[in-house]
Amino acid sequence: MNTAPRNVDRRSFVKGLSTGIAAFSAASAFPSLARGASASSPKKLGIALVGLGNYSTKQLAPALEEATDCYLAGVVTGTKSKEAVWREKYGIKRSNIYNYENYDSIASNPDIDIVYVVLPNSMHAEYSIRAANAGKHVICEKPMAMNVAECEAMIAACKKNNVQLSIGYRLHFDPNTREIMKVAKEKPYGDIQYVQSEASFIMGNNLDAWRLDRELAGGGAVMDMGVYCIQAARYATGEEPIAIRSQEFKTDWNKFKNVDETVTFQMEFPSGAYSNSTTSYNIRSNRLYVSYSKGLAQLEPATKYGGIKGSIQDRILDPQPINQQRRQMDGFARSVKTGTPSIVPGEEGLADMKVIEALYKSLQQGGKRVVI
Amino acid sequence: MNTAPRNVDRRSFVKGLSTGIAAFSAASAFPSLARGASASSPKKLGIALVGLGNYSTKQLAPALEEATDCYLAGVVTGTKSKEAVWREKYGIKRSNIYNYENYDSIASNPDIDIVYVVLPNSMHAEYSIRAANAGKHVICEKPMAMNVAECEAMIAACKKNNVQLSIGYRLHFDPNTREIMKVAKEKPYGDIQYVQSEASFIMGNNLDAWRLDRELAGGGAVMDMGVYCIQAARYATGEEPIAIRSQEFKTDWNKFKNVDETVTFQMEFPSGAYSNSTTSYNIRSNRLYVSYSKGLAQLEPATKYGGIKGSIQDRILDPQPINQQRRQMDGFARSVKTGTPSIVPGEEGLADMKVIEALYKSLQQGGKRVVI
Repeated sequence: MNTAPRNVDRRSFVKGLSTGIAAFSAASAFPSLARGASASSPKKLGIALVGLGNYSTKQLAPALEEATDCYLAGVVTGTKSKEAVWREKYGIKRSNIYNYENYDSIASNPDIDIVYVVLPNSMHAEYSIRAANAGKHVICEKPMAMNVAECEAMIAACKKNNVQLSIGYRLHFDPNTREIMKVAKEKPYGDIQYVQSEASFIMGNNLDAWRLDRELAGGGAVMDMGVYCIQAARYATGEEPIAIRSQEFKTDWNKFKNVDETVTFQMEFPSGAYSNSTTSYNIRSNRLYVSYSKGLAQLEPATKYGGIKGSIQDRILDPQPINQQRRQMDGFARSVKTGTPSIVPGEEGLADMKVIEALYKSLQQGGKRVVI
Repeated sequence: MNTAPRNVDRRSFVKGLSTGIAAFSAASAFPSLARGASASSPKKLGIALVGLGNYSTKQLAPALEEATDCYLAGVVTGTKSKEAVWREKYGIKRSNIYNYENYDSIASNPDIDIVYVVLPNSMHAEYSIRAANAGKHVICEKPMAMNVAECEAMIAACKKNNVQLSIGYRLHFDPNTREIMKVAKEKPYGDIQYVQSEASFIMGNNLDAWRLDRELAGGGAVMDMGVYCIQAARYATGEEPIAIRSQEFKTDWNKFKNVDETVTFQMEFPSGAYSNSTTSYNIRSNRLYVSYSKGLAQLEPATKYGGIKGSIQDRILDPQPINQQRRQMDGFARSVKTGTPSIVPGEEGLADMKVIEALYKSLQQGGKRVVI
């Protein structure tokens, strides 16, 4: 009698094992199942960027030029005119340029190890799942998807296909942000009592218009910037919020007709810590402030591409001369190579999406406390 | 026929005139009615401190030693043992030491021009009104009183007696705080869009215990520190809030059994500006942050006795080497001498109390938006 689970049952077996440690799923339980180069391979993994908007153009592609463990192998774009531009600028093979019709055929392309989904939010789930079904490892930009159900479907699809899934949480690769996480874990300044997290900017008229379309974005400032506030409160406490209350304010009813302009929200954590946050598309604020029972920490700016700076008690955290996106993509490439789980797996995005769903529910209920 | 209002009608006549400009009441309409020395007098006005707790002992009395327009002429205390200590330390005449039984006889003491009420909140209204009835000008510590009705009674009593009333809002006399007020008035950086104001401290066990007694304090962190947040949002916008939502959090149900430990609240202003605040007796935070349509300002610390520092855009606001309490008391003494209204009249405290009442109403209604 064969006591080892058969292939068809392996996923449910893993699922049973991974209860409570969802972040460490198939890839770590069965490293040999993880596709991609082996740990000892010096090969750079090939990344295909799906969607060539601002973030791909101005951040990810330049970052990949500096990367050590991956490179820009391909792109997926619906804009014909961009093909030649990207081919020439980054020396991408003609056969590694895809559009949304032939996207699934990426499955047979050995140059592409990782697909990075940088599309409008409404397309995150579909294109991540199709990438997984094509046998490619996946990085998906934040917010992970439109809702919890989509996040769960993405995680399931990646498990099913034995590929890794990671969310574009670049700040987990920033050394100063990691210092804040370390304090949450080691508690040298006592209990974490309070987190103030702010992530806002004044949206000009030159940004991707889809961000102002609820059908494509799923929401406004909350989906785009509020995620940073939620992330910050989660990593500054090292805990998952158990309840949330939220409030909405709007001044420009034309520009922000269908999406939230400004939202404030408060979260409660199991230890008794709580947070207060503001996120907006129409003000400037970018800060993480933590009050410990025996100390203080702050990062300001807390989410800027150019560098995070701040202090923990008297210790100054100078901005680190690193490219956050490069470190993030190299980090994921190494996870894939070594078959170790990403430090920002799909479960990290799912946790944030659970908070976002509760946040919107609280808004709908006029600010009532909603248990997460 | 006499068309001028007779003495007995003068107050109602003034009341009619002052609708909408309540801050500029009897004293300015009829400067000759204001008691105290004349504008040209070099005489220092005599101040009597009512209540010799921490604030009188550690801040006000030392500040009065440096004052140019007033001096510590007397004290009112219920603690017999303090009488000799204060008499000796500050050279106070024996006849200028009062207790709560003979307090009203202060009326016949020409040494006392101003009574400064530094008692627990529940006693503010009574002792301010009795001072006014004794013909003395009044400074009352913040929060002005327990509720709006008490504030209105205090204002009425001072008008009736033709004495000035001022609230202990020392920050209006701080040069850096005044820079923030100036930006709100002159708007060099466009509209005021957002204010984050935070005023919290971790309450030890050595503070006046009355602060934890709702009967005496009227509330917890909101009454003591939340007032700073409300003040800051009001002077950073130069507007009166029109609506508020508030949320309460508690971790220490023993220590803060009857009073609020931590409260967050959001206010809306007529121009479209809004604010988010945290006030607490159990965390550390002390900041004013303002986002303008074309700029930023911040003060941190924003309420510290030792000095306020910050920046407005690229301009650094260094802490000013001033004693806030000295400037506040000298400023009021000059207002009395010249018969000009205080820059922090009773109406300023009343405005904050209207917000506080709405804040507590919102808390009672589970965070619902309450129109102020």
